[in-house]
Amino acid sequence: MKIRQITGARCTLCGHVTEATPDITVCPECGGILDIEYDYDYIRSKLTKYELMDRTESTMWRYMEFLPVEGIGRTPRLRVGNSPLYSAGRLAEAIGLTGPMWIKDDGQNPTASLKDRASAMAVVKAEEAGKHIIACSSTGNAASSLAGNAAAAGMRTFIFVPSRAPKGKVAQLQMFGAKVILVDGSYEDTFRLSAEAIDHFGWYNRNAAINPYLMEGKKTVSLEIAEQLHFKVPDYVAVSVGDGCTIAGVWKGFKDLYAAGFISRLPRLISVQASGCCPINAAAYIHTMDWKPQEENTLADSIAVGVPRNPVKALKAIEESEGVIVNVSDEEILAAMRLLGRTQGIFAEPAGATGTAGLKKALEEGLIEKSASVVSIVTGNGLKDVANAIKATGEPVLLPPDMGKLLEALSKH
Amino acid sequence: MKIRQITGARCTLCGHVTEATPDITVCPECGGILDIEYDYDYIRSKLTKYELMDRTESTMWRYMEFLPVEGIGRTPRLRVGNSPLYSAGRLAEAIGLTGPMWIKDDGQNPTASLKDRASAMAVVKAEEAGKHIIACSSTGNAASSLAGNAAAAGMRTFIFVPSRAPKGKVAQLQMFGAKVILVDGSYEDTFRLSAEAIDHFGWYNRNAAINPYLMEGKKTVSLEIAEQLHFKVPDYVAVSVGDGCTIAGVWKGFKDLYAAGFISRLPRLISVQASGCCPINAAAYIHTMDWKPQEENTLADSIAVGVPRNPVKALKAIEESEGVIVNVSDEEILAAMRLLGRTQGIFAEPAGATGTAGLKKALEEGLIEKSASVVSIVTGNGLKDVANAIKATGEPVLLPPDMGKLLEALSKH
Repeated sequence: MKIRQITGARCTLCGHVTEATPDITVCPECGGILDIEYDYDYIRSKLTKYELMDRTESTMWRYMEFLPVEGIGRTPRLRVGNSPLYSAGRLAEAIGLTGPMWIKDDGQNPTASLKDRASAMAVVKAEEAGKHIIACSSTGNAASSLAGNAAAAGMRTFIFVPSRAPKGKVAQLQMFGAKVILVDGSYEDTFRLSAEAIDHFGWYNRNAAINPYLMEGKKTVSLEIAEQLHFKVPDYVAVSVGDGCTIAGVWKGFKDLYAAGFISRLPRLISVQASGCCPINAAAYIHTMDWKPQEENTLADSIAVGVPRNPVKALKAIEESEGVIVNVSDEEILAAMRLLGRTQGIFAEPAGATGTAGLKKALEEGLIEKSASVVSIVTGNGLKDVANAIKATGEPVLLPPDMGKLLEALSKH
Repeated sequence: MKIRQITGARCTLCGHVTEATPDITVCPECGGILDIEYDYDYIRSKLTKYELMDRTESTMWRYMEFLPVEGIGRTPRLRVGNSPLYSAGRLAEAIGLTGPMWIKDDGQNPTASLKDRASAMAVVKAEEAGKHIIACSSTGNAASSLAGNAAAAGMRTFIFVPSRAPKGKVAQLQMFGAKVILVDGSYEDTFRLSAEAIDHFGWYNRNAAINPYLMEGKKTVSLEIAEQLHFKVPDYVAVSVGDGCTIAGVWKGFKDLYAAGFISRLPRLISVQASGCCPINAAAYIHTMDWKPQEENTLADSIAVGVPRNPVKALKAIEESEGVIVNVSDEEILAAMRLLGRTQGIFAEPAGATGTAGLKKALEEGLIEKSASVVSIVTGNGLKDVANAIKATGEPVLLPPDMGKLLEALSKH
């Protein structure tokens, strides 16, 4: 199937262009990661932003002309995308931002993370490729989103998860009927075993750094942000960074809209990593592509990736956007979780609050102007990682059912 | 503030009608629970279903003419409502239903349960009443939804929770900045202490059985179901029952649409309780309002209510709709959780899957026709109760990062 708006898949390392078949993985010439390229003149001829705003389709598939698919058929799908963009005045005030601020709460996706955007895309491309089993390795969110989106479409999944993943994430993906392989090792070990198995069995590959279509799903978060802001682009977009695919997807979305003439400028990205695991930011800081592996010392498990699988696209995104680089401690992440909850009623998992923690720090350190307009992306729901939520909040007071005891406890408060 | 579409609040016990001020609780004459009544001729004169379908507002506030508010002001709000109604062909097949089936996934609300509809309403009415603190007692979902919706609007909350509530639910509401009182006792003890404290401090009362507006929020789930089905009403709507407010709200929504001429018939309700705690179904079964307290022996904590606070409205709803009454075991609830996950990619908490468990049993026992059209409501997300999800799925296989060991494990499978 030839998809009219796609011109090909270009290698991010050697520049070789290959045909964008549904099951392409890496560059056949050099093994580099591929990037799907579009015919923006064609997109422009097919869709204007005013036509887009009139559409009734409210999922991520609303942006069909910007996506590497012709359609999604009649297979049942989860309702992915169209997550809320909340105006965040009280949070802005709390962190000293005088400009307008918004939170894009992608924890509101069906399996409660931004990864649903990539997994929904993977399921459609797997169908195009005629595959019936999809596999991936993941610290959790990619896994559960794949399991959920595949289950909705009636497709089987094999999922490789490092043994440190929170039990809630594992239970969620088992509930979706996935065959789970819990690997007693690091994310790197897990990734390698999954790659070997995918090769051996010929499963469809949903490893984000290998499969170039997934980033095309993730970029819909930016298409939505832009449309929700009536195509008025914010000065900054803050996002947490793990293996690099999400920030690369965020950037691709804005670049696509810019290339198609839907927006008139690009935002600067705020790339936020945990201090305990920040190989991408460390390389970006000294403007090199030559990143170094790191240990995975952070409670934000969704971004604890010591050997990022997509550093090239991520580093290019940061460089091209004149990105701001911020690392935050686990304590700063927990504080951002509390802030999001108390000021906005948003419950984020640690990696989900990391972008906001970085924004706060960037303001404190004078890296960005206080009057800037900023969107901070919450990438996952706090219900996914209750242990760390308890760490952030502490245990509540336990009382007998007695009014006297209650008055006593409240008077101490 | 006089709200034009409301005619008053009628006592469900003595029939006395009182003025629907924002902070009414129970009947001033007899202490019975009040029911908000509408002027359907007025609603009909203000809105047609075609005008409704053209609206761009996509939250629960889309149905303003059917709600006890004039507007919701400019205060920040979570995006409540508009949860997906999934066509559920694979699930229908799995349980032997030949008619069309849909799942209304209300676990997709901001704090991951249907209770967000009631809490969003409570916050608006508390604002109207000029209150700055809201309180409630809850097994969990009402609590976290109140905490989240109040936090978004900048309002403080005091929340009374029985000590058996899952930690995830407690952590979520603490994250929203609520002051949590964990009560070492039953739901009944917790409720009583909260009532005393609310009285003492003059807080706004978000106890669903006391505050008649909350059911008006909950009923929006039915307004959405009807609209999502283009006002073609299903034969049955299955829903889990705890304190009785949700099923009463579901019924009120359909009755309102019927009274306003938006739908031409009413569905029959399938009232599902856990066998270990089913005081409402026990009374409904013998057509009496004289229900008896029960112990709370079920893992579905959100519906483990031995002393229901709203039995009258619930029993009337079941009676009026010629409801089907089904009790299910904890094993049947866990099985329904697995079914929802595997066939539809929906992760439900135990109480969230109970409606579906009851539907399956009603089919098996011949209580409803196999060719019926059915909507089953999932009332809460499985991420809220990971311990029971693990119980439903079992632990996954743990392997070293070794291909030989993987092949060995898979060949045994």
